[in-house]
Amino acid sequence: MIRDKWCGEIRESDIGSNVRLAGWVFRRRDHGGLIFIDLRDRSGIAQVVFSPDVSKEAHKLAHDLRGEFVISVSGEIRRRPTGTENHNLPTGMVELYAKELNVLNESTPLPFPMEEAHEASESLRLKYRYLDLRRPELQNNLIIRHKTTKSIRDYLDENGFLEIETPMLTKSTPEGARDYLVPSRLNPGHFYALPQSPQLFKQILMVSGLERYFQIVKCFRDEDLRADRQPEFTQIDMEMSFADREDIITLIEGMIKRLFMDVLGIEIEVPFQRLGYTESMERFGNDKPDMRFGLELKDMADLASKGSFKVFLDTIKSGGRVKAINGKGMAGFSRREIDMLTEEAQSFGAKGLAWIKVKDGFESPIAKFFPDEVLRQMAERLDASDGDMMLFVADREKVVHDVMSRLRLELGKRIGLIKGGFKFLWVTDYPLLEWDEEGGRFTAMHHPFTSPVDEDIEKMFSVDISELQNPNSKLSTIRAKAYDIVLNGYEIGGGSIRIHRKDVQKKMFEILKISDDEARLKFGFLLDALQYGAPPHGGIALGLDRLVMLMVGAHSIRDVIAFPKTQKAMCLMSGAPSIVEPKQLRELNIKVDIPL
Amino acid sequence: MIRDKWCGEIRESDIGSNVRLAGWVFRRRDHGGLIFIDLRDRSGIAQVVFSPDVSKEAHKLAHDLRGEFVISVSGEIRRRPTGTENHNLPTGMVELYAKELNVLNESTPLPFPMEEAHEASESLRLKYRYLDLRRPELQNNLIIRHKTTKSIRDYLDENGFLEIETPMLTKSTPEGARDYLVPSRLNPGHFYALPQSPQLFKQILMVSGLERYFQIVKCFRDEDLRADRQPEFTQIDMEMSFADREDIITLIEGMIKRLFMDVLGIEIEVPFQRLGYTESMERFGNDKPDMRFGLELKDMADLASKGSFKVFLDTIKSGGRVKAINGKGMAGFSRREIDMLTEEAQSFGAKGLAWIKVKDGFESPIAKFFPDEVLRQMAERLDASDGDMMLFVADREKVVHDVMSRLRLELGKRIGLIKGGFKFLWVTDYPLLEWDEEGGRFTAMHHPFTSPVDEDIEKMFSVDISELQNPNSKLSTIRAKAYDIVLNGYEIGGGSIRIHRKDVQKKMFEILKISDDEARLKFGFLLDALQYGAPPHGGIALGLDRLVMLMVGAHSIRDVIAFPKTQKAMCLMSGAPSIVEPKQLRELNIKVDIPL
Repeated sequence: MIRDKWCGEIRESDIGSNVRLAGWVFRRRDHGGLIFIDLRDRSGIAQVVFSPDVSKEAHKLAHDLRGEFVISVSGEIRRRPTGTENHNLPTGMVELYAKELNVLNESTPLPFPMEEAHEASESLRLKYRYLDLRRPELQNNLIIRHKTTKSIRDYLDENGFLEIETPMLTKSTPEGARDYLVPSRLNPGHFYALPQSPQLFKQILMVSGLERYFQIVKCFRDEDLRADRQPEFTQIDMEMSFADREDIITLIEGMIKRLFMDVLGIEIEVPFQRLGYTESMERFGNDKPDMRFGLELKDMADLASKGSFKVFLDTIKSGGRVKAINGKGMAGFSRREIDMLTEEAQSFGAKGLAWIKVKDGFESPIAKFFPDEVLRQMAERLDASDGDMMLFVADREKVVHDVMSRLRLELGKRIGLIKGGFKFLWVTDYPLLEWDEEGGRFTAMHHPFTSPVDEDIEKMFSVDISELQNPNSKLSTIRAKAYDIVLNGYEIGGGSIRIHRKDVQKKMFEILKISDDEARLKFGFLLDALQYGAPPHGGIALGLDRLVMLMVGAHSIRDVIAFPKTQKAMCLMSGAPSIVEPKQLRELNIKVDIPL
Repeated sequence: MIRDKWCGEIRESDIGSNVRLAGWVFRRRDHGGLIFIDLRDRSGIAQVVFSPDVSKEAHKLAHDLRGEFVISVSGEIRRRPTGTENHNLPTGMVELYAKELNVLNESTPLPFPMEEAHEASESLRLKYRYLDLRRPELQNNLIIRHKTTKSIRDYLDENGFLEIETPMLTKSTPEGARDYLVPSRLNPGHFYALPQSPQLFKQILMVSGLERYFQIVKCFRDEDLRADRQPEFTQIDMEMSFADREDIITLIEGMIKRLFMDVLGIEIEVPFQRLGYTESMERFGNDKPDMRFGLELKDMADLASKGSFKVFLDTIKSGGRVKAINGKGMAGFSRREIDMLTEEAQSFGAKGLAWIKVKDGFESPIAKFFPDEVLRQMAERLDASDGDMMLFVADREKVVHDVMSRLRLELGKRIGLIKGGFKFLWVTDYPLLEWDEEGGRFTAMHHPFTSPVDEDIEKMFSVDISELQNPNSKLSTIRAKAYDIVLNGYEIGGGSIRIHRKDVQKKMFEILKISDDEARLKFGFLLDALQYGAPPHGGIALGLDRLVMLMVGAHSIRDVIAFPKTQKAMCLMSGAPSIVEPKQLRELNIKVDIPL
């Protein structure tokens, strides 16, 4: 036995007993003829004392211990002398007096000191990921991630879901994001694609009568990696037969509630709040609002049109929107601060930012364009009182919402409205279709298998051929049985009920102007499968990386992935991707072909 | 609610209650004005009766029901009339009298009838995998597979193991089998490799101090697919720090015991039997013997050399082996049957098969070459008595073992010695090194990080440079801390304790004649990592597909994989691999290059 207890486990109840620990030398101090070692393992830190009075031999050996040496050490647990306890550590009341020391391995000096690892550059830390992963913070992230998948698996198993593996070597489809391709050696000139999601396979499993499927599974997208994306990411993917929207929503609420209790000991209230897509856009400017604070957007068009401010009037006349938000307590902002805020709004896409301070009346370059009564009504609508600043954006709806939703977040942070905690939200009733300006036709907002809500099916069937060309036809008002789950302003998952009726599917393709041949080419085997008795079904997929990131309060998904890649999709530790042997390419019947 | 009970759940205790079921129309019979439907869902089959006396409307609707229509049906559970019960079905005592029928979806006629699905050709079934997967037998395989991973995850979690995901997009290494490559778009001319196993990463995680890792993970090998291989397969992979061989073995025994009880309700005895590699080869001719029966191989060289049979004498003189096995009860074999057996042995690689029947004395073309006393001693050694037939192979050791181990299996089956049940076995003490005839040097039998057993380390360090050239030097006797787990004649997993001492690793590379530069090229980041305080560690990987195959008694791993590939690594359902758009290849900076 190299150890009989973990470092983080020793307590006052162990005093007097003999214990054997193993781990890494974290810190070392020599003091008063004694050598003190902070011994670290996955569970925590224990203080080990080497005294010549207890063991001359161990004390002598301990002289050569350096940072990150691996040791096994046994001895008696004693109470730390009064005044030397460490109340920040669970093991801080006791220490181990070493009788026997075994140096299991040495370590050459580290490229960065362990205690300052978090201060090293990210690229250095990624290169030496194995050292960075020794940090208790990152280890805790991986432990939480493990517990998360464990809790989810327990819950889904109890609810009759089967974890079924779908293939990693699949077929490339022209839809969606860019595929990662894998040349086939046995089929020259042919390629597999790594899955962007198991969507087709999970629907196939429903056709197969497996009824309840889930999988925690790697997915792949060959995108230009913006901000916090990874080329490979992990999805909690599921699908359920004989289920409607409420079944999926209830299932997931139960899963989240169980997860947060199991892993974080936090009680999450269910049911979650729900917002229709349109309402979410109106009140918050996007479909993933952070519900931990208010600062809602208000439509100001009616009041704006009672004044003579030309920018507002022109915007309204051209079909645009004028919306405002309350900059709570920001009336004291200097001109410089307002200019910076305006620049920020402009960087988000606004042409400008209009402001009216509420401060013993109204102070603003545009106040003069409005009767006092209108200004008062504006303030009332925004719940703005003395000390606040009303902020206006006037533009096309898309721009207004885009800018104001970001502005809202920015102000929420700046004003300090965003406290901790976890606020879940369902966004529902997404439009089934969106207008494709370029193509001059409707496209599926989610995918062409997403079901319309029952009440709107009639609209599909009563549609007139001319309406297919009209972005504002009643087609635009058809709602989908789609739902997104949002946590603290992040979309953490989404799904839908799928179309299982042949006539509805046919009509859907008609509306999307997808011919039979085209449908076959794009969705081939799923279309075939749907003919042979497909049950009503629907599902959802949640992003595990992001969910865990939010649970542990990390700033990047890289902190919850053991071996993440950089923005150039490289692994700095292993050196992947790399050049390969010419023989390998020959066997695969491919050639590198880089244009000069 | 589309259902409030599963089909397979209805019992006599439900008689009189109203129940709603949903599922697929499996069989239909019309009899005496009634319509009988076998309704199937994942849980089983329920009999549904449509009677005009109960509901005219439902009865009328039921007329149009065809095979694999999807329905939801509600009504009263009644006891089946005496004499019409089906005692083979858990639901066979009752039936549902339909009050209301809802046709949820229709089905076009199937390419093969569901009831005869298992008789359709495998390629047709793979093309329509979604229909084949409706067979209860295949569904049960996937359910057992789900329960298996669940049980394993529960057990490992309880034992402090963390499931940690390692990358799918990794670096190609020249070692081992052929890699599947993935061109990198962001790094032109560079390629990722799909992992053959997470070996390097799991050792890295030990260096990182995560201490106990596991993962149920897809691995990839681009091999010519013999018999029962898949290009992507699933491993139960684990690694443990501060552990020696006994720790891993005990851990896995506990896991298997728990697994078989959880999933199959079968008590497995621990500890498992163990055999040293050499003993396994001597007694069974291979290192994965089926321990459910005897028929052990016996060395006959000493007795053979007491006779004058030239083939035996020549073989012994040239350093070969003469071994025999007891063909229990086969003395009645005709000349033709013996000839066929000989042909079989020849197809396994033998030059011939010698036989001596025990039948009121000894009957054999070669009996005349041996004194009766020697024949009697042979029979005694093989425990052969009247009615048996002794079978001999004389050849190089490798051939003898290869042929006799297959012959043993063949006889075991033919004689009917192989009963059901699960016999686990550890094979240990593998040679650390094997002689590479071509290269004229030793290579690592497992991998160069496998640790020698403690008692043999001295042999490594006392080795003389000349011994590196000698296949029979004491190097050949060094045993590795490697272990394979065998179930019913299948190797289901293997692992080892790794080298963590720098001096041992250095000596190992010296013996393997791997220079520092070469080692760096091949094992780069792992070698780096091992310098910084690597703990003692070891691990194991089990093949999930094969394990589940044996648990359910399937004949192929294809029967326990939802979407398997063919021997040409094709998915007949999705059509993967396929040709892709020229644009996709351009973006990846590669070209198809098929030699004419």
